[in-house]
Amino acid sequence: MNESLVIEVKQDILEGNDRAADEFRRQRKEENMFLMDVMGSPGAGKTSFLLALIDQLCKDPGIRIGVIEADLESDVDARKIKEAGIPSVELNTRGICHVEMGMMQKAYAAFAGMEFDWLFLENIGNLVCPADFDTGCHSRIMLLSVPEGWDKVCKYPPMFAVVDALIVTKCDYLPLNPDFDMNALREHARVLNPQLEIFETSARTGEGFDKVAAWLKSRKDSWNE
Amino acid sequence: MNESLVIEVKQDILEGNDRAADEFRRQRKEENMFLMDVMGSPGAGKTSFLLALIDQLCKDPGIRIGVIEADLESDVDARKIKEAGIPSVELNTRGICHVEMGMMQKAYAAFAGMEFDWLFLENIGNLVCPADFDTGCHSRIMLLSVPEGWDKVCKYPPMFAVVDALIVTKCDYLPLNPDFDMNALREHARVLNPQLEIFETSARTGEGFDKVAAWLKSRKDSWNE
Repeated sequence: MNESLVIEVKQDILEGNDRAADEFRRQRKEENMFLMDVMGSPGAGKTSFLLALIDQLCKDPGIRIGVIEADLESDVDARKIKEAGIPSVELNTRGICHVEMGMMQKAYAAFAGMEFDWLFLENIGNLVCPADFDTGCHSRIMLLSVPEGWDKVCKYPPMFAVVDALIVTKCDYLPLNPDFDMNALREHARVLNPQLEIFETSARTGEGFDKVAAWLKSRKDSWNE
Repeated sequence: MNESLVIEVKQDILEGNDRAADEFRRQRKEENMFLMDVMGSPGAGKTSFLLALIDQLCKDPGIRIGVIEADLESDVDARKIKEAGIPSVELNTRGICHVEMGMMQKAYAAFAGMEFDWLFLENIGNLVCPADFDTGCHSRIMLLSVPEGWDKVCKYPPMFAVVDALIVTKCDYLPLNPDFDMNALREHARVLNPQLEIFETSARTGEGFDKVAAWLKSRKDSWNE
């Protein structure tokens, strides 16, 4: 087993993936469709975050939103999104730990030409591997829940380094987690990623979603400036 | 880029890893050293679980315990273990999402011949990839914390299928999580893995650690039967 072969294979996969992602991103921008990749650990609250954020975005009448729900197996999350009346496509990776462009293109094609203002990808619950794979989105964000602990920024730096925004979720748990040091999290995250936006949210109380939605809209508005 | 090449490369890596793992496991058993691989998401509570379990095991006088602390980066967990006075080795994977035998052998060698009754590997926080890689341990367990949600058993089945025991952690959070359906978790997990042992624990209250320690000791005692 030749180790350099393994490295070359990974390099080829990533480069091919990056080229396809750039082209996909360009096409969606031409259609004025903003794509966002939502990443985070299992149980960070990705589906609840999306439901609350979509609620907020839908205050603008006529807004069209779709969701791609990636999972190793099962339709648990896809069902929650469908029950909320949001057009969605289920992307089962059959055990693969991240989403690549081939999967993304197939999932997008399954919408059969539907037009959206916003299209969200709920990525596989994994704080490691998805950081390496460009999914052709215009923005990547990550969720970190209060019960996971602030020190994850020290232990999983690659993810914090590649995203545009860090969403701290389940902030209603803060009184129960006196060790969760929000200032230390902010400081460490900004060292890894000086441009990082940081939002504190709770899907239970609704805290912070107005700010996340406003930031997201400003990202899309900048296309027309 | 030839897809079958990628698959063959992965197959070669896994087969080579499995052979090395079998040999490593055999050698440690000859030394009467029981190795346990502890897996779970970021923030599932692996380090707190280990500290509470080791406390319990140390009630038997003269017991010798070591820990290998795997992380992408940082010495956050390794420091906590060291501060508790437990011999430990820090295994930094530099961004790799799982532990393989090559890393395990190097980490073990760093103990420079120290002898243990129990050696624990705290694996990378990842509910997906470590399931694929045998680390040469005699038992593999996984942690699932209450705040993550019971439905992770539907979404990440490979991990639940490969372990000997499922440790539900942070059970002191149950009153705050009325949606956490312990019966549904037990039922779904046993469908994937009929032999699975399931323990409910809280490192805060100490709940369940006597049972986990007793189970662990019975596993090692069975070597001498």
